[in-house]
Amino acid sequence: MKSYRKELWFETPARRSFINITGQVENCLRESGIQEGLILCNAMHITSSVFINDDESGLHSDFEKWLEKLAPEKPHSQYSHNGYEDNADAHLKRTIMGREVVVAITNGRLDFGPWEQIFYGEFDGKRDKRVLVKIIGE
Amino acid sequence: MKSYRKELWFETPARRSFINITGQVENCLRESGIQEGLILCNAMHITSSVFINDDESGLHSDFEKWLEKLAPEKPHSQYSHNGYEDNADAHLKRTIMGREVVVAITNGRLDFGPWEQIFYGEFDGKRDKRVLVKIIGE
Amino acid sequence: MKSYRKELWFETPARRSFINITGQVENCLRESGIQEGLILCNAMHITSSVFINDDESGLHSDFEKWLEKLAPEKPHSQYSHNGYEDNADAHLKRTIMGREVVVAITNGRLDFGPWEQIFYGEFDGKRDKRVLVKIIGE
Repeated sequence: MKSYRKELWFETPARRSFINITGQVENCLRESGIQEGLILCNAMHITSSVFINDDESGLHSDFEKWLEKLAPEKPHSQYSHNGYEDNADAHLKRTIMGREVVVAITNGRLDFGPWEQIFYGEFDGKRDKRVLVKIIGE
Repeated sequence: MKSYRKELWFETPARRSFINITGQVENCLRESGIQEGLILCNAMHITSSVFINDDESGLHSDFEKWLEKLAPEKPHSQYSHNGYEDNADAHLKRTIMGREVVVAITNGRLDFGPWEQIFYGEFDGKRDKRVLVKIIGE
Repeated sequence: MKSYRKELWFETPARRSFINITGQVENCLRESGIQEGLILCNAMHITSSVFINDDESGLHSDFEKWLEKLAPEKPHSQYSHNGYEDNADAHLKRTIMGREVVVAITNGRLDFGPWEQIFYGEFDGKRDKRVLVKIIGE
């Protein structure tokens, strides 16, 4: 069994954003040389996500509106967590969107359906944060 | 390390439905001959889900009502994604229900608690769609 | 490839609670002797969760309030599932929080960001329930 590990770093200028990281994950897979196995790709921070969906800007603005409806940022005082922090909503939003994805590797490629793309979802940005890519297989 | 891959195909007559796929995943596991390892089972489309819950029809109608409350289908015009499409709600519903499950394999069997069953959740049906079953182990 | 399996048992005095199980999962990892691989940690019951977030009591009370808003327990009669049961809300809450986490193992340790902790989320407690820890790797 082979294993591979890499951290991807992000600093987003906005509090919230979605970044397509499929190309970076494919680079990791090539670097690993692994042909058959599994990739785990997870946010290392608890106010961000890694998820799979469509790379379509209308959908991304729908996600932003929808997450603000389900877990509004403001007023900050509505959350007990927001004593010294103001990011309770980011913990909730990331819970909806998910921490991680696991993707099959087949013949050295991400084994994806036609529209699957991997995104980093940032909900409390403006600082350095990380995604872990871990690959195991052969 | 051994690996195994299979696609399961579904075409549901309704826009939304839940299909118990536990038996089909068990067939894959038997075919693979793998005794110890992990199964990844994921929707290959971004408007459907694979999830684990109870095979109880009352619960499934609760899920349907609840998802319609959290991410209503109509009016279609409420979503930016719905220019040429009408399925933005399906992307949101699938986000709640999840893209994938990872299940342990122990002694050649799905290592499940008493009521765990695997479901395909369709939120934009009436056309051919796929689930990926990938197994790694020994 | 090595594999390891353990069940963790919980009986919570309250219907709902969050328990930090990071230490117990680390003990499993040490016992396994595995240095590189993946850990799957999942609820074996369909009314509880395993998830990763912050060990902060204010946040946990925010989660409790938020889940009650998105999937209220009462009135029990609002759910079709609640014929002989009263736990439909627990199935929905666990869906939001997730069934499982997959964590990378690097150099014999959980490969975590600075604040990641693993929690058992109970939504229908007061009886014995189980979490599965399955580790594969080398």
